[in-house]
Amino acid sequence: MKILGIEHIGVAVHSIDERAAFWEYVLKINRTATETVADQGVSTAIFDTGKGKIELLEAIDSDSPIAKYIAKRGPGIHHICLEVDDISSAIKELTENGISVINETPSVGVEGYFITFIHPRSTGGVLVLVELAQKQKP
Amino acid sequence: MKILGIEHIGVAVHSIDERAAFWEYVLKINRTATETVADQGVSTAIFDTGKGKIELLEAIDSDSPIAKYIAKRGPGIHHICLEVDDISSAIKELTENGISVINETPSVGVEGYFITFIHPRSTGGVLVLVELAQKQKP
Repeated sequence: MKILGIEHIGVAVHSIDERAAFWEYVLKINRTATETVADQGVSTAIFDTGKGKIELLEAIDSDSPIAKYIAKRGPGIHHICLEVDDISSAIKELTENGISVINETPSVGVEGYFITFIHPRSTGGVLVLVELAQKQKP
Repeated sequence: MKILGIEHIGVAVHSIDERAAFWEYVLKINRTATETVADQGVSTAIFDTGKGKIELLEAIDSDSPIAKYIAKRGPGIHHICLEVDDISSAIKELTENGISVINETPSVGVEGYFITFIHPRSTGGVLVLVELAQKQKP
C-alpha cells in the first residue's frame, strides 16, 4: 500500500452556510467544490489549501452518519482522508493483515474518488476515523 | 494571510507505543520524529506522508491539555494544523478581524515551528481546534 498524502480532513458542521465564511474569507482558502453525496446523506463544501483539503460535511438526512455524529458529539473534526495509489490493493493488504474496512468494495465519494473507511477498532477508537481514497483515472 | 497547506493532523492517544505501529507498519507512513514538548506536557511522534503529517500526542503530565482532552472525550483527532507563511501577520490579521487566538505571541511547537491556536469560539466549536504554524527559517 502506498499513501500519497493527506487528501482531506472532514469536519462535521451544523450548517455549511454558517461555517464556510471562516474557511473561505477568514483563512482565505479557495473553495473549489460543493457537492451532495446522496447515499451518505450529506452535503459537502471543499476548500483546497493546495496541500490537502478541508471538507465541511452537513447532514441532509436525519438518519445519515453525520447527523448521528453531530447529535451525539456536536460539530467537530470527523475524519482524516489519506490518498492511496490503488484502493483495491490497499483493502486487500489491510484485510490480509487483520485490519477491518467498512467498505470491502470501494464506494464512490466526493469528487469521484473510490473510497473506504478503516474500522475504528483498528485505528484506536471511534474518534480516529480514517478514510482511504483513490483518485479516479481520467 | 497565506495558508501554505495542511502541516499536520494532531491525534490524541493514550500511548504512542501502542498506536505507532498502525501508522508506521500498517499504513507504512515514514516516522520522521519523536519529540517532547515539555511546556505542553506532551510527547509526540510524527509520521510524514510527504503531503501532510500525522502527529500522535501522548500526555506526559496529568495536567496537560492532552491529558484533560482524553479524560473528557477519549482518544481522537485533536486538531488541524495549517502552515502559514508569516504567523505574526496572520495573528495580526485575525485579531483585527475579531478572531481570537490562544497565543497572541507565537509559541514554539514541535519541530521548532512558531505556532498559535485559533480560539474554538471562532472555528465553530471546541472540537474544531485549528493551529497555525510557521516554519522557522534555517
